[in-house]
Amino acid sequence: MTDSTQKRLFIQEVSVRDGFQMEPEFIPTDDKIRLINQISRTGVSKIEVTSFTSPKAIPTLADAEEVMKSIDRVDGVEYAALVPNVRGCERALSCGTDEINAVMSASESHNQANLRMGRTDSLQQIRAISELVGTQAVVNVSLSTAFGCPFDGDVPATEIIRLVDQLASLGVKRLTLCDTTGMANPVQVAALFRQVGATFPGLVLTAHFHNTRGMGLANAVAAWQTGVVHFDSSLGGLGGCPYAPGASGNVCTEDMVHMFNAMGLTTGVSLEALLDCARALQTLVHRDLPGQVLKAGPSTRRYTRKGATCQA
Amino acid sequence: MTDSTQKRLFIQEVSVRDGFQMEPEFIPTDDKIRLINQISRTGVSKIEVTSFTSPKAIPTLADAEEVMKSIDRVDGVEYAALVPNVRGCERALSCGTDEINAVMSASESHNQANLRMGRTDSLQQIRAISELVGTQAVVNVSLSTAFGCPFDGDVPATEIIRLVDQLASLGVKRLTLCDTTGMANPVQVAALFRQVGATFPGLVLTAHFHNTRGMGLANAVAAWQTGVVHFDSSLGGLGGCPYAPGASGNVCTEDMVHMFNAMGLTTGVSLEALLDCARALQTLVHRDLPGQVLKAGPSTRRYTRKGATCQA
Repeated sequence: MTDSTQKRLFIQEVSVRDGFQMEPEFIPTDDKIRLINQISRTGVSKIEVTSFTSPKAIPTLADAEEVMKSIDRVDGVEYAALVPNVRGCERALSCGTDEINAVMSASESHNQANLRMGRTDSLQQIRAISELVGTQAVVNVSLSTAFGCPFDGDVPATEIIRLVDQLASLGVKRLTLCDTTGMANPVQVAALFRQVGATFPGLVLTAHFHNTRGMGLANAVAAWQTGVVHFDSSLGGLGGCPYAPGASGNVCTEDMVHMFNAMGLTTGVSLEALLDCARALQTLVHRDLPGQVLKAGPSTRRYTRKGATCQA
Repeated sequence: MTDSTQKRLFIQEVSVRDGFQMEPEFIPTDDKIRLINQISRTGVSKIEVTSFTSPKAIPTLADAEEVMKSIDRVDGVEYAALVPNVRGCERALSCGTDEINAVMSASESHNQANLRMGRTDSLQQIRAISELVGTQAVVNVSLSTAFGCPFDGDVPATEIIRLVDQLASLGVKRLTLCDTTGMANPVQVAALFRQVGATFPGLVLTAHFHNTRGMGLANAVAAWQTGVVHFDSSLGGLGGCPYAPGASGNVCTEDMVHMFNAMGLTTGVSLEALLDCARALQTLVHRDLPGQVLKAGPSTRRYTRKGATCQA
């Protein structure tokens, strides 16, 4: 079912950034640090720890410096932070961030709404960020709305290729294609990753999906089938977007790991340890999260027969 | 991404059987009939209307005869009913049921728990059902726990092939492979459908998935990639199984149709009409259902920019 022989996958946890930024209440700094330290020991390859944005824009992540400075640094785990501009990059570097995740949108309207600047200005910011980072860290660019924009609609693949070409010319070596508002479908995912991968074979690609319309795991499989091995996801499926109220958030880490493990792939992640983290996260946000495996248990779960009907 | 060129899919609605059988409260017969009549006009190709089981076992479907006799019969829609045994088949035929959906499990323990008989006895029932039906209707067999059993665990593909071979020798022409408790993963789905399809090329195959662990749509895509074009699903994702309390139910019809439509395939189903049905169903069961598109709207939904942040 795949043209890829890649069996080793890399799971990149984003709940403490992409999820917490949407929370209505501030999660206490100590709780964030404790959760991140717990996630660090599950086998994930990267944690997007926080976002160095304006505390006015995202007050729930106003403790970015303290969190990044205080967490344990576990061998084999990269600690990333999202930065929207040069100022954010300076703050991230001051805390020893391993990966600077610069963000811009594939669509003009979303870039304006999200970053309050045009894409041309964002590209200038990313150029300056790349120069500033030098060899202190690595730069990843997360390209939001790569599979569609809630304002502008379809984003043509030619536009993605054009933007990625500009990013590559700035020396960017890592790229995340983000389905920011859950608009991607598996055919589109396969086509875009295949085209970007073929056009820029040197780029390390990450798939970042939201489960807004239930297609998150189907899209993850579609990306994997084209050879993608890096996946962003969020414990419990925490996250979301203000443009789809009530909908599911990011693809759920434990559901995705459960699926990939069941498919015979190697994630290097302990499902049991992840489920413990998801439970801890639910306690922090005071509600049940959309993750399914937390409710149903893994597919290896066995029951004693009791005679209840469950036809077909 | 596929070895199939099949673009015309057939959507088979099971909420009013697989969903309603699990409901704690009896849905009034008139409400059932009204909803089925509404579903009949969405473009689905088949509706599993009810189950002719013992009213003691499934009291919420005790009105099977009245429902099957009273619904509109819309051109182009098949009206099916699940039957566990010969007695159920007689009742179904007395109401002019188009398709007799005989059920048995791939695993011995689940067959015992669900049908209170062994698989050998179920095969005898299906033989008798096939003879009884003759040319009055068509017979489909739904093979439960085809991707794993909550009691017995893995069900080897060789066991599925052995059972399907016996069913084919009874003259069965239609077969549904059911992931009754949501244990299937995409690699397994692709492998089993490919093997069954190659071994029994004359069989019309249906994929029946549950979203218990979030893999429902990923499994649907995996089945489609092997050439499967018939899919069972349930409005709103209604349904479930007593062995996974709190978990999601059947694959959600409107989410699956939304995905397939977005993938450029032809379902023949109106998403808007389905969403109206899902809203009506939510009213009948007095709660929100797990379907995502009902909450988020389709991926073609557009928003006016308001400046809210939604980074990556």
